[in-house]
Parts: sequence; C-alpha cells; structure tokens
Amino acid sequence: MTHADPARVEALIEGLDRFNATPGNGTTRLTYSAEFRAASDWLREQMEAVGLSVREDAVGNLFGRLDGADPALAPVLIGSHFDSVPNGGRFDGPAGVVAGIEVAALFRRHGLVPQRPVEIVAMIEEEGARFGGGLMASRILTGKMDTAQLHDIADAAGITAAQALAAYGLDPAEAHKARLAPGSVHAFLELHIEQGPVLETHGQDVAIVDRIVGLAQVKATFRGQAGHAGTTPMDNRRDALVGAVTALAQLPDLARRMGRDAVLTVGRMEVLPGGANVIPDLVTFTVDIRAPDGEVVADLIAQTRAVIEGAGGNGLSVSVAQQLLVQPTPLSAEIHAALSRHADALGLQSRTMVSGAGHDAMIMADFAPTGLVFVPSRDGISHAPGEWTDFDQLARGIDVLFLTACELSGAEPPRLPAQA
Amino acid sequence: MTHADPARVEALIEGLDRFNATPGNGTTRLTYSAEFRAASDWLREQMEAVGLSVREDAVGNLFGRLDGADPALAPVLIGSHFDSVPNGGRFDGPAGVVAGIEVAALFRRHGLVPQRPVEIVAMIEEEGARFGGGLMASRILTGKMDTAQLHDIADAAGITAAQALAAYGLDPAEAHKARLAPGSVHAFLELHIEQGPVLETHGQDVAIVDRIVGLAQVKATFRGQAGHAGTTPMDNRRDALVGAVTALAQLPDLARRMGRDAVLTVGRMEVLPGGANVIPDLVTFTVDIRAPDGEVVADLIAQTRAVIEGAGGNGLSVSVAQQLLVQPTPLSAEIHAALSRHADALGLQSRTMVSGAGHDAMIMADFAPTGLVFVPSRDGISHAPGEWTDFDQLARGIDVLFLTACELSGAEPPRLPAQA
Repeated sequence: MTHADPARVEALIEGLDRFNATPGNGTTRLTYSAEFRAASDWLREQMEAVGLSVREDAVGNLFGRLDGADPALAPVLIGSHFDSVPNGGRFDGPAGVVAGIEVAALFRRHGLVPQRPVEIVAMIEEEGARFGGGLMASRILTGKMDTAQLHDIADAAGITAAQALAAYGLDPAEAHKARLAPGSVHAFLELHIEQGPVLETHGQDVAIVDRIVGLAQVKATFRGQAGHAGTTPMDNRRDALVGAVTALAQLPDLARRMGRDAVLTVGRMEVLPGGANVIPDLVTFTVDIRAPDGEVVADLIAQTRAVIEGAGGNGLSVSVAQQLLVQPTPLSAEIHAALSRHADALGLQSRTMVSGAGHDAMIMADFAPTGLVFVPSRDGISHAPGEWTDFDQLARGIDVLFLTACELSGAEPPRLPAQA
Repeated sequence: MTHADPARVEALIEGLDRFNATPGNGTTRLTYSAEFRAASDWLREQMEAVGLSVREDAVGNLFGRLDGADPALAPVLIGSHFDSVPNGGRFDGPAGVVAGIEVAALFRRHGLVPQRPVEIVAMIEEEGARFGGGLMASRILTGKMDTAQLHDIADAAGITAAQALAAYGLDPAEAHKARLAPGSVHAFLELHIEQGPVLETHGQDVAIVDRIVGLAQVKATFRGQAGHAGTTPMDNRRDALVGAVTALAQLPDLARRMGRDAVLTVGRMEVLPGGANVIPDLVTFTVDIRAPDGEVVADLIAQTRAVIEGAGGNGLSVSVAQQLLVQPTPLSAEIHAALSRHADALGLQSRTMVSGAGHDAMIMADFAPTGLVFVPSRDGISHAPGEWTDFDQLARGIDVLFLTACELSGAEPPRLPAQA
C-alpha cells in the first residue's frame, strides 16, 4: 500500500510517452521538437488538473505551483527532465516529472496546505541529445550557463538552440529571464531511475543518494607503423593495437583493486587504417573514470596514465590526454537524513548510494539544498527501449519524496492506511 | 653494373606514374578508369618502342610479343599488374610490368633471338580495388573466373565490371576470349616489390620466392550487455571489450610460439555502441593468419578459435567464424633453381623467401611453371605513397629475370661488361 497511486503513475508515464518520434523503437523526444511541445502542453494539463498554477519559463521549463500559507517563502522544488536520448526509455527523466505531479496530487487529495509553496518542474535538455553538453535547464536556472550561448550551440542539422527556441514559440532575447534569483529555492528534490543494477540485485526499494561521483575522461593514442599482414614478420612489427591491448588488459583491474566504488570503462575505441590485412598504425580509446572520492579519481587518472604510457616503447609512441574532470558533488546531508528517515518510516528497504551519473540534482546542489532518490531499474537497463521500473516501485519512491516534501514545506502528512 | 639500365627503368616507372587520379597523394589507378586507359596506351607505345608486337586482350590485359625462332612454341610470359590501390605507391605492380619491358629491351639491345617467343604482360585488377576480390586478370587468363561474373561484380558506384569494360572500349560479350588455352604458356615470371622489411633488414638484393603462404581469415564476435559507465558496478558488468581484450592479448604470441614464418594480425576491430560512457555490448575483430605450411595455418586457426572461445563466459557470448582459407601455393622448383643460380652468377645477395602476400604468380602457378622475384621495399612500406625501391635495386632484380628468361626461352645471354 502506498500513498502514491501506481495506476495514476502508470497513466502519467504512459500518457507522456505517447509524445515520441520513434514509436515502436524506444522513446525519442528531443528538446523543442514537435513531440516536446505536445508533451509540454499535455504536462501543463496534468499539472492544472491537480490544482497547480502553471507557467512556462523563458527557455521552456514548465513550473506548476501549489501556493503555501506564506507565499513569501521560497518553494520546495520537485522535478526532473522530460527530454530523452534517441531511442531511449520512458522513465529516464519522466519518472521524476511524474513523481512531482503525483506529489502535488497527494497534497491536493489530502487537502494539505504547506507553509511554503511546492513547485513541480519539468525541465528541458538534460540529456544534451539535441544540443550537446546536457544539464541545460539546471545550468540556466542556476546561472551556470549564459543564455547568450543558445546562439552558439546547434543540433546535428545546424539549427541553433536560439532558433529552435524561437520555433518553439519563445523569444530567445528573453531567455535570460529563466535564471532563478539566488535564494529563491528552499530545497530541490529529484526522483530518478537508478540506471544500474544495485537496487534490483539487493532487493531494495529506494536509494538515497548522498553524492554524485567525480568523473574524468582520458583519451589514449597509440601510434605505430602500418604494414602488410602477410609480409611483415612478427618481430619487425610496430603494431599499435598490440600496444593498446597491453594497456587495455590492465585497466579494469585498476578500478577493482581501488575499490571504494570506483568504476573504469573503455567505451569508444578506433583501430586504423582498419583493413583486415593491414597492421594497425593508429589506435585510440577513451577511459571513463568515476569515483565518489575526488582523490580516488585523481589516483586512478595517474594509474591509468602510467599503464598507458608503460605500454609504449617497442617502436610505439603513446600519448594520454585528459579531456574532462568533474569533482564529486555532495548533496544535502539534512535532506539525505530526512529522505532516509521517511523511507524507514514507510517500511521500505533503502540504501545510501553514490550516483554514478550526473543529474539535474548535481547542478542544483550548488544552488539549493538538494536531495536525490533512486528507484530500481530492471536489469539495470537505461537509455534503451528496455528501460523499465515497475509502477509499484515508482510509487514507493514517490512516497519518500512526498513525505519529505511535506516536512520541508511544512505540511502535516497523512497517515498511511493500514495494509488491507 | 647491371644489364638493366636504372635510368631507363626510372623513366618507365615515373612515366607510368603520371597516369594517376591522386597526384601529390600517392598513386591511384583503378582498373578501366580514364587513368588506366591512358596508362595502357602509353604502355603500348613503350612496348612497341622495344620492338614488341602489342595486342590488348578481351578484358584489357596488354601483351607485347617478341617472336621466337620457332613461333609454334609456347612463350615465356613475363609481367605483373598496372592497377593500384587507392593512394598507393608507384611500384606495386608497375615494377613487374616495367621489368618485363626492360627485359624485352635487353633482348633487342643485344640482338637476341630466342627459340621460344617472349611475351610481356601488363595485367588489370590485381588489387581488387575497384571490383573486389582481386587477381582478376590471372583468374580470367587461367579460366578460374567465368567472365559471366563481370556482369555481377560492381564498383562502389554500382557500375558493373562489364559496364566499365564497355566504357573502356571493349565488348563484354567477347570477354571469354581472354582465357588462355591450356599449355599455351611455357613459364610465367613475375618481379614484385617485397612489401616487407626482410631484404632491407638483411642487406640482400633479391628474394627468390618458393611458395605463397596459406591464408585464413577468422572473425570473432563478443556479445555482452551495454550499461551506463557510471551506474554499473565493476562486478555487475558484461563488458564485451573486456572479453575481447583477454583474447587479443594472447593472439600474437600464438604465431610467435609457432614460429615457422607464421604471422597473425588483428587489423579490423569495432567496439559498439561506441559511447565513451557506455559499456560495450558488441565487439568484433578479424584475425588474419598466414604461414607457408598449410598444417601450421590449420593449427593456428584451431588455437585462435580456442583462445577466443576461452575468453567468453562471465555473461559474454562468443562466436568465431572462418571467412577465408587459401592453401599454400608452391612455385616451380626448377624455375626457383634457375632464378637462384642466375642471382648467384650475377654476384647478388639473395635469399629464398615465402611470399606472405598473394600475387598474380599465385594464380598462374597452377597453369604454368611460375617464378617470382622480390626486390627490396624501403622500410617495408607498401600500399602507401611512401612505397619505394631504388632503381639500382630494381635493375638487379630485372637482371635475374632477364638471364632466366634467356635460359627459359633458349637465347644466349650476353656477358655482363666488367665493373668500371
């Protein structure tokens, strides 16, 4: 038995998922597309239906406001994004938007009047699937992105974000008005699918995130000498792939030996010139390094660099370039405690988790006390059509969010009816 | 001091290299292209200039004939191909065509009248760069390719070989006439650049090839589970690249331990989906295996298969497909002996070598007693603009061919003038 209604949650998830450029092949809803406009209009109706006053901000974020007893107080903000990756799933982003709407529905159903306003937000372009970079809404809201850049960033067809915004029906010259005033948000709460297997593996209901990992990306380049596969003896070769493999064979163990929730991934690799009968002269690969602790990230970068450089020699030249370094982001300890306490009170199995992925909460955390709740992802799948979370599971996560929103906004939560 | 004239050899190589679609960026002369037609016409002039009677056969091979005292005898055929790979070098193919023309020039200069005819041939489409497959001239000449297939094979633009042949000025309906009658060739001699570093490394002048390697190509496929690089713990991963690397790390040593001139090369590899922050779920790579001994090839195929299959498990599925198997081709022992004897008599440093690459000689060997001579490749480079052989070195290789052609055709060779 949950406060949140799994059937209503399902209706909202499925309703939103109709706005999709690739039906039958996963969910594709790029920011400012026709599907995105239709989704926004439909979300407005859903917010109004639960009694919220809705406004679209200057870059297309949708806010639904439930007034508090003291309208001068900064609101508790709850939400996530409603754009998707190409051919992704229906939960990454929408789960958090729907959670916000269901929290508002619970306030309305129980006649709760909070001291502070509660605002639900549905945000744009978190994935960066259209304009690159990602986390655009939260970066604009918190002043970390200058909206003049909307004229510089463009999609694959060369359409700038500013042009797309105008086509969306908003004025790019007004975009700067989307920035929130410092102190204007009391707290930010986000629910998101885990996108990993941990909750499912442990049979747990929710994870309360205490920090977002630090992240580095390193690119390795091995250069050797191309040659004919048939006419170059084994001992005369300067095979770039042989050197790269020597490094690759050692990399995952660096993270395993480090422990402390460190992960290391080689996801992109190129072998050139790429003829089946030609010895490779150029191999590049990326190394994605993540860990909750910034010192662990730094240590793993150094170890990765040493392994790659150590695989040079024998006529191979090697270079290592660090392409990205993001320090870990701690979330609010107070909100973490509140979320955990409410999960316990609800009788849920919960764990504290570090988020291995960035989310809008990562950006918001520097702006307002922020909390992030994960619900299970079936088989850990995400960014794919098979992305799934059972609606009962989603409802449990929403309950945690609801009770915490009551506490933070100063509303008296209802008692959960006893199990039938 | 050589019989062959390095300056004349240089003029022929450089003259032929003017017919090139990519001047300044290596040599590109695809079969039946405008450059190819111009090159053929120019080669005809060069053949006629040294007294040969020239005919173009029904698929565009150019033959220049020096009559023998007994025109009823089957000729000694000498030559190679004059097509190139895209952005290749000026020697791969042309060195052997030019060698043939220079041999004919030496016959003329010394007034030699052989018992048998000597024919020089400039062949089409050895590289397969336009229509795929390669070795097309020798396969058609020897009846190993049905010319009806010219209607089925096409270039990247979809133009069939038959259409291209018609545009080249020849009638596809006549193409079958290019096939040579069994017994119509007394011997075939080819000079080719080594395309490897062995002669240069050992400071030797020529290699006399005794066989063409056996060759296999194997394709490995590793399938795992994609996942987010940040949210999937190290111990929950089914990373296809980690499995592939386990196999790749062991493969080159299979050939090294085998010895016996075995070589093994991974030249093509794909890692999918290819996002820097996505655990790979699909990795494929090719394994090119070559050895002079067919049993060694078979043994290496089995070992490669075992290594690849052994790297599966842990949630990875693995498959291995054999895509190609060509048995080793022995060349004529008699001609090998004659070539070696003449190299010795000329005071050249020579070695017997297995050819790691296929050549027209590989196909001709089943049709007529065949000999193949390699000259050094600077830095072992081939199929690249940097492909190079000094003209003095080329002239030494031509001398070996010339004296052997005298012997095989029944002509009395001249004495080499004493060193100045």
